[in-house]
Formats: sequence, structure tokens, C-alpha cells
Amino acid sequence: MFVNVDKVSQFAIACLTKCGMSAEDADIVAQTLIVADQKGIHSHGFMRLPVYIQRIKKNMIVPDAQVETVRETESTVVADGHYGAGQVVGYRTMAMAIDKARHHGAGVAVVKNSNHFGIAGHFAQMAADQNMIGVVISNVEPLMPAVGGAEKVIGNNPIAIAAPSSGETPVILDMALSHVPLGKILFTKSQGKDMPEGWGLDKNGAMTTDPAQVHDGESMLGSLFPTGGAKGFGLALMTEVLTGVLSGGEFSKQIASMYAMEERQSISHFMLALDIAQFMDITEFKQRMLLLAGLIKSSARAEGVEELFLPGEIEQRWAADNLDKGLPMDQGIYDALQALGQELGVEFNV
Amino acid sequence: MFVNVDKVSQFAIACLTKCGMSAEDADIVAQTLIVADQKGIHSHGFMRLPVYIQRIKKNMIVPDAQVETVRETESTVVADGHYGAGQVVGYRTMAMAIDKARHHGAGVAVVKNSNHFGIAGHFAQMAADQNMIGVVISNVEPLMPAVGGAEKVIGNNPIAIAAPSSGETPVILDMALSHVPLGKILFTKSQGKDMPEGWGLDKNGAMTTDPAQVHDGESMLGSLFPTGGAKGFGLALMTEVLTGVLSGGEFSKQIASMYAMEERQSISHFMLALDIAQFMDITEFKQRMLLLAGLIKSSARAEGVEELFLPGEIEQRWAADNLDKGLPMDQGIYDALQALGQELGVEFNV
Repeated sequence: MFVNVDKVSQFAIACLTKCGMSAEDADIVAQTLIVADQKGIHSHGFMRLPVYIQRIKKNMIVPDAQVETVRETESTVVADGHYGAGQVVGYRTMAMAIDKARHHGAGVAVVKNSNHFGIAGHFAQMAADQNMIGVVISNVEPLMPAVGGAEKVIGNNPIAIAAPSSGETPVILDMALSHVPLGKILFTKSQGKDMPEGWGLDKNGAMTTDPAQVHDGESMLGSLFPTGGAKGFGLALMTEVLTGVLSGGEFSKQIASMYAMEERQSISHFMLALDIAQFMDITEFKQRMLLLAGLIKSSARAEGVEELFLPGEIEQRWAADNLDKGLPMDQGIYDALQALGQELGVEFNV
Repeated sequence: MFVNVDKVSQFAIACLTKCGMSAEDADIVAQTLIVADQKGIHSHGFMRLPVYIQRIKKNMIVPDAQVETVRETESTVVADGHYGAGQVVGYRTMAMAIDKARHHGAGVAVVKNSNHFGIAGHFAQMAADQNMIGVVISNVEPLMPAVGGAEKVIGNNPIAIAAPSSGETPVILDMALSHVPLGKILFTKSQGKDMPEGWGLDKNGAMTTDPAQVHDGESMLGSLFPTGGAKGFGLALMTEVLTGVLSGGEFSKQIASMYAMEERQSISHFMLALDIAQFMDITEFKQRMLLLAGLIKSSARAEGVEELFLPGEIEQRWAADNLDKGLPMDQGIYDALQALGQELGVEFNV
């Protein structure tokens, strides 16, 4: 099913403003949900709106929080998100990094007391759209063990890196540090199938192919396996340092689940912006990016492979294909939004 | 076998100065070789000295090159290594990033026309030793294909991230983006064994368990598999952007092999330093690092696992254990160094 982008955006804004968010901030949240669904990353799209609203109602997300600069230098900012919506905190924090980079070449902004911010790549692209390289990292609640561990101690922290190109679109890597997201394990479980090895561990830290040993449908018994094993764990740990440790926020087991409504999450983000024009001519950089893309895309392919893709290319093509049709949406999510509208007294007419 | 650290260091310095390197620069190279062997990362230790010397003799490495600042802002440097030894270029480029960070919070330095620089973690630790977080990336010659590709188009680029702690040592992640290094595949081949799936691809881009399909002992027929598949490839591509593309150097298939002596390599490095005191009190940061380490190390273990380790912890413990004994060295490397001494007319008395 495809829904009207403007109408569903207006619906999200109406729901969020009804719960105390400013129209400007609600628009930022709606935009990130739209981009996620347009790119086919539905796990971070409108599917999340009901839980965000629920978190606002329980005061886990503070709808009118302002991102506050706690400390700054020529090229760095330490900020406090005061438990605002992650999308708003992420947007404003990347805007700070971009501003620093514009004036001094590089800008780094870290922020604590944020919430789940949706797709990391969206904030990295903010930098690419300003002819900068953007690097975005967030911590999340613990979902993975240490190497040889049997307890969730570190998030499958997302990393996004974006760079502009003279090709049709910027190149945007957006990945989490578990081999697969939990959603993929739950989907496999819903199909009654086994998982391949390397996706998840059971409650004893042993590799399992039974998705029910990772998540029984009610709670997470086991854990996600870090991508590449020790490498994914190592990157997750160091991204935790760059986010939760450096920002002054929570880290590791200090962070509560997004779905636990008893306790606020202090999620931290790390944003780096590099103003390319202060490194080299921006046109030359973009041409070099196109040359790199060409070297990859024109390289020899394995049997049966029709095309080689750059990071983010499939998602961007998907988004371009969807532009005319509207926003792709599952019936289940459509129904959940309709129920949300009734609950809030907001007209659902998409 | 263990050799005397001071004597083998003096030997390396004598060889390098004999080939035209200044004593100061030769000391920088020798130090990185020692640290690698002390940590048990022998592939980046004294084993490499003969090939470095060979490259200097063929003018692939320019022994008296000076790192030149091409462009700078308050927080960024673009430099040209003029084909100097990678260790020297890496050291001086990180020193530039550290200097920028000290004055303006964050420092980013990129450099082109460098060479293989040894262990990336050594340069990241330079920042940690100055109470900074250090991030180090290098590109290398192409060793991995795109996802679905059958041709080497991207390096298994190393990434190192180091942060100081009030624990015994800084925490240092140092990893390459292939699932295993080529050396591990060659070792498996030398043992006449099969590899597990996920290490390497054959010349057609198909997964193989036969190490001879990856490297026949003479040349690399196949390719290394990126860690985590698409994730390792994506990170490799974006680290190529931060190094070769942003520095103005070579990238992807433009980079020749270190063992090809016909053409200079223009390897690029990316260095980021963040001065922690400009984000938060440094003592507090180090205590937070120790707390994070404690949460990881005290977490539940899988059956049969005796201890959980932080990134770099095993290598640092190995190095501490070796301090009294001297530098661990294989007979083969010992013999190669002896032959090198004879070739250069440098006394080998370690």
C-alpha cells in the first residue's frame, strides 16, 4: 500500500504537536520517518510513531525540550538534549557540528540525554547536503555481549558516514554493529524458520539457530551477535566511548530499553562534520567520488550478480522509485496509525 | 626466541640511516616495529624491515622525505608525505592532529603520498598518551571485492581508535576490515589445511575454503572477504573516502601493491584527535572508561570462557609480559635480519 506523503506527514505533525511538541520540531521528526519509509527502512519509519507518542505521554521523551550547549570550543560542542525526541536532538546536534566545520574546517558535537533518533544516515546526509563529510554515531541500549560473554553489555550502535558526489546522490553508509537487526530474527521466528549461524546467541552465550532462544516474543533472552565477532564488538565498544562516555551520558548496561516505560533513556550521539572545501576544491572532490564509484561499479562481478552497489545506493534507488507512488506502508502500520489518531483525537485521512 | 630490544632497535636504526634516513626518523620507524612485535602483531614488526629497506633502495620509499603541510585551518591539516616511510608520515601527521586538538578541541589531519605505516594502533595511542581520543585510518592496496564482486577494488583498510583510562592501560582497538588478514590464509595454506567459510573468495568471487584459491604462494588469485560482508565493505569504502579521496591521494585500484617495486604507492592516512579536557574533566573521563571496562569485564561469561577482554587488552598484556624477556622473534625473521645486516654492512649483534 502507498499513502500520500504530505497527508501522512501532516498526521504525524498533528499527533506530535497535540502531545506538546512545537510544529518545527514535529516537522523534523516527521521528515526522518518519511525518509526511512521511502528508503525501505520501515523499522525506523512510521512504525515507530506510536511508541514515540507513548513515550511522550509517559514523559520518557520530553516534547518541548531544547538542546542546550554545555561547553564549546572553536571546533567542538558538548550538548544536553534534556530528553527531547532523538530526531530533534540529532538534527540540532549535527547542525552544530556543521556550523563549527563551516567556520573552522572540522566540527565535532556530542550530546547526552537524547532518545532513539531513527536512521543515522539522515543526519549524515545533512552534512553531505552542505558539501561536507558527515559521520554519525549513536549508542543504544545493550543488545550484544563481549566476545565470549553471555550477557548483553553493549549496543549494536549505528554508524553512518555520508559524502557528496557528482553522481546522482551522495554516498551514504548506514549500518548497525550487530550482524543482523533484532527485527530480522523476529521475522524469521514469525515464519517458523531457523536462522543461519552468526545471527544470535542464546542466554548462555552459545551460538544458536533457533530465533526463540534469542527472543521468545515477550523478552530478549539471548543477544545479537556482533558483525564480524570481535571486530563488531570492538567497534561497538569504541563507539560507546565516543558517545556515552565522552558526552557524559549513560553507557552500556546503564541504558534502559526504549520499550521500558519506567525509566528515561539517556542516549548519546556523536556527530563529526568535515567541510570539504577546506581540504580540497569541492568540485574535484565530487569528481573523485564519482571516479571511486565507477571503479567499484564497473569491477568484475561474481556469477549471477547483475549489478554492484555502493553503500546506500539500493535504498536511494528505492526512495527515488517511490517518489511518484507515495509512501509504502504495511496494513498493520496503517491500522496502528489509525488507532493512534483515534486515541489522540487527530483525524487520520491519508 | 627473545632478542635484546635496545640492540635490535639500534640495528634497525643503523640499517635505515645507512639508507639515507635521519636518526630521528629511523628511531620512529624502529619504535613502531618494536611495539608491534611486543604486542605479538609480528606481521607488522621486524618481519617488515627487509621489505622496507628494499623499497628504500628502489626509491619507492623516500628516506629523507619531509611531511609538508599543504593546507590548514584552525582544526584541519592536509599534508603531503612525499613518499616518506609510512611510520614517519603517520607519526608526524598524528602529531599535527594532536596539536590542532590541543588548541581548538578537535584536530583532523589527512596526508597523501605515504607508505605502509605498520600498526595503526600505535598512532592512535599517541593521542591517548596525550589524554586525547585518537582515530586512525589508512587505506591500503585493494584486497577485497564489492559485495557480489569478483575483483579486488578496496583495501582491508585498518581502523584504530584509542582512549585513555584510569585503568592500567589505554583502550586501543586496532583492526582491519577483512575478516582475517592475508597472513592467516597463507599460514593455513602452509599447514595444508582448509579455511573456514568467510575468510576468502576465489578468482570468480565465490566463497572458498581452499586457501590456494585465494593465494597460490606467488600471487593473489582471489580476494579477502570483508568482515561482516556488506558492513565491512561499506566501512572500507567510506574509510577510502576519508583517506585517499579526501587527501588527494590514490584510492581503490590506483594503489599498487607494497611488494610491487615498479611503482610508488600513494597511501593516505586520516587522523582525528579529540582533546578530552575540552569535553569534560579528564579525571572523570578516565574513571568513566574504567567503569565501562568493569561493566564489560565483570559481565556473565559463556561456558568455558575464563575472562572477557577489552579491545587491545590481550596485546597489551602480551607486551607487558614480554618487557622483561626482550623482543619475541622467529628464527626465520632473525635469519632475514642477519642477512639484511650483511647486505648493508651493518653489524647484527642482537
